[in-house]
Amino acid sequence: MKPLSITWKDGSLSILDQTLLPGSVVERQLDTVESVWDAIKTLKVRGAPAIGVCAAYGVVVGVHRRNPRSTQDVVQAVHDSADYLATSRPTAVNLFWALDRMRRVAHEANGASASDLIAALEAEAVTIHEEDRALCMAIGRHGSSLIGEGCGVLTHCNAGALATAEHGTALSIMYAAQAEGRRFRVYADETRPLLQGARLTAWELTQAGIDTTLICDNMAAQVMREGKIDLVVVGADRIAANGDTANKIGTYGVALLAKAHGIPFYVAAPYSTFDLSLATGEQIPIEERDSSEITHPFGAIVAPAEVKVYNPAFDVTPAALIHGFITEAGIVHPPFSAVSTTSGE
Amino acid sequence: MKPLSITWKDGSLSILDQTLLPGSVVERQLDTVESVWDAIKTLKVRGAPAIGVCAAYGVVVGVHRRNPRSTQDVVQAVHDSADYLATSRPTAVNLFWALDRMRRVAHEANGASASDLIAALEAEAVTIHEEDRALCMAIGRHGSSLIGEGCGVLTHCNAGALATAEHGTALSIMYAAQAEGRRFRVYADETRPLLQGARLTAWELTQAGIDTTLICDNMAAQVMREGKIDLVVVGADRIAANGDTANKIGTYGVALLAKAHGIPFYVAAPYSTFDLSLATGEQIPIEERDSSEITHPFGAIVAPAEVKVYNPAFDVTPAALIHGFITEAGIVHPPFSAVSTTSGE
Repeated sequence: MKPLSITWKDGSLSILDQTLLPGSVVERQLDTVESVWDAIKTLKVRGAPAIGVCAAYGVVVGVHRRNPRSTQDVVQAVHDSADYLATSRPTAVNLFWALDRMRRVAHEANGASASDLIAALEAEAVTIHEEDRALCMAIGRHGSSLIGEGCGVLTHCNAGALATAEHGTALSIMYAAQAEGRRFRVYADETRPLLQGARLTAWELTQAGIDTTLICDNMAAQVMREGKIDLVVVGADRIAANGDTANKIGTYGVALLAKAHGIPFYVAAPYSTFDLSLATGEQIPIEERDSSEITHPFGAIVAPAEVKVYNPAFDVTPAALIHGFITEAGIVHPPFSAVSTTSGE
Repeated sequence: MKPLSITWKDGSLSILDQTLLPGSVVERQLDTVESVWDAIKTLKVRGAPAIGVCAAYGVVVGVHRRNPRSTQDVVQAVHDSADYLATSRPTAVNLFWALDRMRRVAHEANGASASDLIAALEAEAVTIHEEDRALCMAIGRHGSSLIGEGCGVLTHCNAGALATAEHGTALSIMYAAQAEGRRFRVYADETRPLLQGARLTAWELTQAGIDTTLICDNMAAQVMREGKIDLVVVGADRIAANGDTANKIGTYGVALLAKAHGIPFYVAAPYSTFDLSLATGEQIPIEERDSSEITHPFGAIVAPAEVKVYNPAFDVTPAALIHGFITEAGIVHPPFSAVSTTSGE
């Protein structure tokens, strides 16, 4: 059974705190919009699709806490919550996409009672959640044939069950290949600074019984050179119309190394990660995070206090380095002029 | 004043414990050959040239502890100590080169008294030490013109004063460019798993007042893409006759990324790092180190217990990716048919 990053039960939102994995498996209830914002900001919940799902529920939580009396109060609470949650992280477009879906429900409220609108908002968040589960399953189905018997697959960061409602994007194709009975090896980049590859990908893949080897990011080139990698597949945080793809810092380097070794490089993502309002990746905002993530990893002090630090959380891989995009609608190629609307088929 | 990795004073060997930097600056006296072996094995002293210097003194320490009565006892103690120290680390050729120099002194002892031979051994170790200082100074002089005013330089691991007797190899050219009055920026890869870039390079460069920015290894491609890097320069652990170069894991990837961005990539090393007995880099033995370096960095547990780990300490960069080798004799190119004998000029 795969870990569930987000649970909605009886009108209450809880998440698996990913900052504590793999040492501790702790669920945290998020009963204020501020706690949802903090969970996203501090990466307790992370991964572009999961951020979208969590933010959608966050709007519902924000509305509930406001105890709105009128439909207008509900609409106001939706916009206040969405505006606030939108400031948590800038790069993953799924956040804004999910918040826009919630705003649209409020916008289309005409004449609904406050309680009906609240019910509709909750239903929309649940739909986004369930849709993501189905989208990820479909991504797995469409991409699994890329992983042949005995294949070596490299992935970066975590684009797994933990990064989504369930199943994952890049990791969904591994789970699907496993379900289809093929054996293969996965190499997981540890993914500094926050080690999502070591802490999350290695954890969920070993839990699932998939043969997984952890490496430091700077070992990827060597592993490729040794002939151990036949395929690279990663997730995405935002994909521009021309196919340029923002994903966890280091992805661009991996794509260049894959090219140098003649290894195909794929991006797996649902339609909610495509941002067709942006012509190219140059327009994607890149979050820069605190230097302490690099200088004080997990409590240790590993750098002199005086040193400058550069800590971009994402980079943009040019479309030319990407062999294909594994989506719920199949493997597609840019330019993208319309998002898939197969929505999990 | 640059830190001194190794000090020999009144017949006593001490080292700066590099595993504790930058948090603590601790000198350790090494008064048994076992403590010298351990210091090399556990990276208390590291960097190919420094390992060579330390091992040469280690032979002297081994001889002293044996309290040899006869010349033959001294010769035996030299071989026993050298055989033992040679098992500490396999990749850096400077270790074997320095031990061979000590053996040669013993071999040429004919007729010397035990005390004369011991004095000759100590003199040889001191010569290796002083020679390395001079070689590194000369490397700096020959390479410094590569760093122009306003230049951005990327380096990986630590090839600085700490990796040598003094001055460094790759970092020597930075110190020389600084002494010549030029301003430039250095980007230091943190260099997982043991973070020699963060802990050692960032420390010694900031101490020297050089503008230094620390990045995670997986950010190098992004920094290059942003146009911040004009030159990459690294050290080496062993260079084959055809120019293939073993250096800290991740170097090969950096060389590929530099090529993809049209950035010149240089290796800085003294003649003691060239191993002309090897035709190509394929014959260089690559040390694989304990998985805990990756899974338990600095006391934290960051990976599931069940995961496999691959932890090669070095990789080999093909000569074709290397623009030139900055040596004490100038910038040279393969194939190498004879080592430089300018020995620090």
